[in-house]
This record gives sequence, structure tokens and C-alpha cells, in this order.
Amino acid sequence: MIENRVYNFSAGPSILPDEVLLSVRDNLLNYLGSGMSVMEMSHRSKVYDKIINDCIANLRKVMNIPDNYKVLFLQGGATGMFAAIPLNIQKTGVADYIVTGNFSNIASKEAKKYLKEVRIAGSTEAENFSRIPAQEELTLNPDADYVHICQNNTIFGTTWHKLPETGDVPLVADLSSCILSEPVDVSKYGLIYAGVQKNMAPAGFAVVIVREDLLAGAQPICPKIWDFQLQDKKNSMLNTPPTWSIYICGEVMKWILSIGGLDELKARNQKKAALLYDYLDSQSFYKPSAQKDSRSMMNVTFRTASDELDKKFVAESIEAGMTNLKGHRLVGGMRASIYNAMPYEGVEYLVDFMKKFACENG
Amino acid sequence: MIENRVYNFSAGPSILPDEVLLSVRDNLLNYLGSGMSVMEMSHRSKVYDKIINDCIANLRKVMNIPDNYKVLFLQGGATGMFAAIPLNIQKTGVADYIVTGNFSNIASKEAKKYLKEVRIAGSTEAENFSRIPAQEELTLNPDADYVHICQNNTIFGTTWHKLPETGDVPLVADLSSCILSEPVDVSKYGLIYAGVQKNMAPAGFAVVIVREDLLAGAQPICPKIWDFQLQDKKNSMLNTPPTWSIYICGEVMKWILSIGGLDELKARNQKKAALLYDYLDSQSFYKPSAQKDSRSMMNVTFRTASDELDKKFVAESIEAGMTNLKGHRLVGGMRASIYNAMPYEGVEYLVDFMKKFACENG
Repeated sequence: MIENRVYNFSAGPSILPDEVLLSVRDNLLNYLGSGMSVMEMSHRSKVYDKIINDCIANLRKVMNIPDNYKVLFLQGGATGMFAAIPLNIQKTGVADYIVTGNFSNIASKEAKKYLKEVRIAGSTEAENFSRIPAQEELTLNPDADYVHICQNNTIFGTTWHKLPETGDVPLVADLSSCILSEPVDVSKYGLIYAGVQKNMAPAGFAVVIVREDLLAGAQPICPKIWDFQLQDKKNSMLNTPPTWSIYICGEVMKWILSIGGLDELKARNQKKAALLYDYLDSQSFYKPSAQKDSRSMMNVTFRTASDELDKKFVAESIEAGMTNLKGHRLVGGMRASIYNAMPYEGVEYLVDFMKKFACENG
Repeated sequence: MIENRVYNFSAGPSILPDEVLLSVRDNLLNYLGSGMSVMEMSHRSKVYDKIINDCIANLRKVMNIPDNYKVLFLQGGATGMFAAIPLNIQKTGVADYIVTGNFSNIASKEAKKYLKEVRIAGSTEAENFSRIPAQEELTLNPDADYVHICQNNTIFGTTWHKLPETGDVPLVADLSSCILSEPVDVSKYGLIYAGVQKNMAPAGFAVVIVREDLLAGAQPICPKIWDFQLQDKKNSMLNTPPTWSIYICGEVMKWILSIGGLDELKARNQKKAALLYDYLDSQSFYKPSAQKDSRSMMNVTFRTASDELDKKFVAESIEAGMTNLKGHRLVGGMRASIYNAMPYEGVEYLVDFMKKFACENG
């Protein structure tokens, strides 16, 4: 670990791998002998062309993305895509949204602006989104243009361990806070999207991975920069792209390949999550917020017996060299986001701190 | 000048000040003792809050922005704003667009998606946009919601030295390639916008400076992330903003204040532009592309007698340690973008090279 840095449990934007930061620092004034910082490069230059093309090619390799899927880098974040997706892939104008947290809820509301009908095909709001609904709880419409889910719920600390069965209806999934945490079978989705600021890159764009047959043409009111077909033709450079974020994304892809890809990351992430969840299950001072069968490997939510103790925990964790452990206001308590770049030692350090805090305050 | 760097004449993304790059490099692994890179910071943290608030406050100071103007940082670049502006400030749905180049043309086409009527109130297309139209050439509609111009035409190397008189109709201006190059009277505009990737920051967002009385509420189909009123309430952080680009923008603002503000930059920019234009006017080997009274202080376009010589010029300029002097395909020839961060020495170096090249090939 680089000296004098904290363990950063931020839900996003989030920790980046040390190896990436060091390489970026060393190339900041002059990228690979180009005489420029990447921040200063024309996106129409040969040197930048290689950066974006390598980034896309390596993302395809890392995620094993089939050839009939397009990869787009678009501005506006996942929240932008809440509008861009219905603006691009509707046919009949009816879609199913399964609401498992704050972001799937916002996504469904944004979609209503552009679709004839948004059906809520399932929701666990009554249980404050502490779990993912079972297949039999869903009321899916076989004629829907698509079924939308948020695969990992950053705020609530839940995840879809088994994807909903949607038959012939394309599954559209927001993977913002779980993308690249483990291998996924891309062919099971019609469209995957993700804000990059958790496991991929610094904030600045969303990646969209879309099966090409779903691109029937954007709606006439779709802003040009979000026209999926047009951006595909332009290699995501219809207008000036967020060049720096894409560069860092490329560095993260190289790092993932260098350590052994998503299989290795899955093993590391399972080990980190197990350390934290096993401790949570072994004691009674802290209460996990998410139900056991829906637990996220990336965002671990828990609380003490009182808001007062939660506050004390957060304050003391900062003094101990950790940051961003405060939970989201919709859940309360604490949240430890343990994305790809968080080392095992960071989770060990957190668990040791939790044990000590429980002893002192139990 | 930092060693081993080239003189970068890129039209955008563009050169950044040495002082900014050095400070950013030194803080890359650990920003001011926070234990994190700015790339890794939660946008909801105290440390990041200070970064964005200082950036906005310093931009207000640098540009002397009146209190009744809102400052927004929005994703999607200027091209995104081509859609966002009609989605936010229409009343009757009729607007005048003056077309003086590629981007004002694209802006007018994008606006047609969202307005009842887009009137072309003037155009210099017949002269390949080599000049800005005079007031008497414009057919302005006194009932228009706004008049749109692109104040500096990056591709063609022209600029509005005197703003069009629009009476009570608000002037909406794209300042992407001239913002911060000299003081402007913000109160003469209804709305100023700019992609940041030329004089402000690395690519990643657009700044919008809008008179508050123009914000009557976004159209129902406006994507949430572009709802000006909503983003104003949220301090431009409705969703995760492009945190890194905003940070660098803040560093650029500090740099501008440290050297004496926009008066000093105007003096420097006039001196640089005069060096290049005076040379162009003193010889006949190169021909300036823009007409004299419309010349841009930021983007200087010129050509030799043949495409072949232009190519040779560009190739040899790269060997001599300069980049991005190739003109845009819509104009041909060469273009030297001499933004704020380009030192006088860079322009001297270019002019010396031009003289030598003219001697050898004349």
C-alpha cells in the first residue's frame, strides 16, 4: 500500500488500485513520451485513438463480451442512461421495472417520461429494500420491450445472485456497483450499463454494452449524444469524450488483466466479503441490514443498536484511518464498500476495528 | 516550461498550464493530506465539497458573474447543451440561430428536435464561414425566446468581436473556445455555455451561466440530469459529477487568479495572436483563412498554396516538436490554437518555424 493513504470505503467515486495511481502519476506530465499529459490530448489524435481502442478491446476481453454486443462510452452517468435507454430501445413503449432500491426507483420514474407505460413488475420497498424479490413474486409482462433491474443496490447492500427469468424479453441491468467484480455471462442480458465510478474509473461516463439487434434506432427526441447507433458508428466520439476517465478505465483494464482477470477478482472479492460477513454473523453487537440471501459482495451494510453508537463508530473509524463508512441516510448505520481495489488488508483492518469498538461499547 | 514536452496547438482537449500539471502530479496519490487521490473521493464528502464550491466561487470571481446568474456544471459537453438549452429555456418555442460555423449549425439542428420553430437569422455559409455577419445582415425576430450564437468558431478561426444587438431577446452564446480568454460582460447575455476542454479543464463537462429569470422550468421530456432548476438546487450534484475535471477546473481558476485574472490573460493572448497575425500579414507564402475583421484570438487558421505543402508543413512541425497544427477538414490548411496555457515562447517558436519553412519551400 502506498504510504500515508487511508482505507477508503467510499460507495463511489471509489478507491483505485495503487498500481494504476502510480502509473498515472508517473505519466502525468508526459504520457509515454508523447510530450503531453493525457488531459491535454486531442481525442482525434493517434495516441489517444490507441488509448480508447485498447480500453474497449481490453474491456471486451476482461468481460468476454460476445461480438454481437456493442460497447459504448457515454456521458451523463447511469442517471443519464435512465433516460437514454428508453429513448433507444423501445418498440411498443411498454417496459417492466423491478424496484429493489433507490436507483431502480429513479430509473423507473425517468423512463415514464419516454415510454407509454412503465410497469412495476416487483418491489421490495415494503421491507425497505432489504432483499431481492423471488421469481414468483414478479409479475412480468411477456410483451414488454425489456425488463429493467438494478443488479447491485449500492445503498441497501443487496444483489441479484440469480437473474430473473424473463423469457424472450431482453434483460436490461444497471451493474454500476458490481461490474467487473466477478465474471458475468453477457449473453444473458439485452443491455448492461454502469456508471464507471466504482470498479472501472473516476466518475465521468457510463459504459453501455448492448446486443446489436436491440438497436432499432433512437426516438426522434433523443439527444444526439445519446443516440446509441450514432455513437456506435463514431466509436463513442461523436463529440469530445471524457478523455481522462476513459484513459484511467484503460489502465484499470490492464491492471485486471495483469492480476488474472475476473476469476481472480471474484476469488479476492469473495474472500474479503466472507471475512466481513462471517464476523457479522458471529456476533450480536452489529446487525447486518441486508437479508442473508440477498447480500452484496461489494457493499456491506450494518448497524449498531443505536444511531448514537453508529455516529461514534463513524467518527472513530475516521480517526483510525478509514473513510466513508457512514451508511446512506435511507438505510442508516454503516456501509463498507469493498470494491475491486480494496485490499484484503483493508477489510482485516476494518474487522479488527469493529471488534475493538464492540468490546469498548458493548 | 516542463522539460521534454511539446508545444501543443490542439483545438481541444488542449494544453494546460505547467503550474496546474505540476500541482496535480504532486497531489495525485494523496490530495492535501486527505489520504486519497481526488479521483477516489466521494462527491458527498467535505473535502470534495470544498473543491467544487471553491471552483464555482473562483469562476464567479474570475468572470465577475453577477449574483442573478446561476452557474451549473453539466455532463454531455457543449453538444449535450445543444439539446439541454432548448429543453430548459423555451417559452413560445421559437428561437433564432445565427450560423457561423459547424457547431452553430449542429446546435440549430439539435434545437429543432425540441422547438416549434428554429429560424436561421443569419449565416455566412456561402463564404465557408470565413467571417461573422454584420448586424444589418441579420433577420432577428423580436418575439424569439432567444438568439443563439457560437461566439468563437474553433474550426474556422473566427470570432464575434461585437455581439449582435438582440434588444430584449436574451442572447445565448456558446463560448467553448474563447471563454476566459478575456473579460466579458456577463450581463449582456441571457446564457453563456462552454465545453470546458479548451481554456478551463480536461474534457468532461460543460459550464452553463444562466440568468435566473430565464429558468421557467424544464420541458417534461428533459432528462433529469439536464434540468437546470433541479441541478441548481443540487449544486450541480444531482448525480455523481465528473469530479476530476471539476477539480482541475478549480486548479485552473486558482492559476488565473494567481497571474492577475482575465485582464492579464487578455494582454497575453493579444500579444500572442498579434505575433502570429502580424507575421501572416507581412508575407505571401501563407494565406490566412479567416477574414481580417473576424479573426479569432484563440484559433488562427492559415494555409500554403497547396494541399501538398500543407501536409509537408504539418509533418515537419511534428518533427520540430509541435503537435496538432493540422487544420480541420472543413477548412483545410493549418490551425494553431493558442489558448490561455500556450506560452508566448510557443508562438515565437511556431512563427520561427513558419519563416524557415517558407524560405525552404517558397
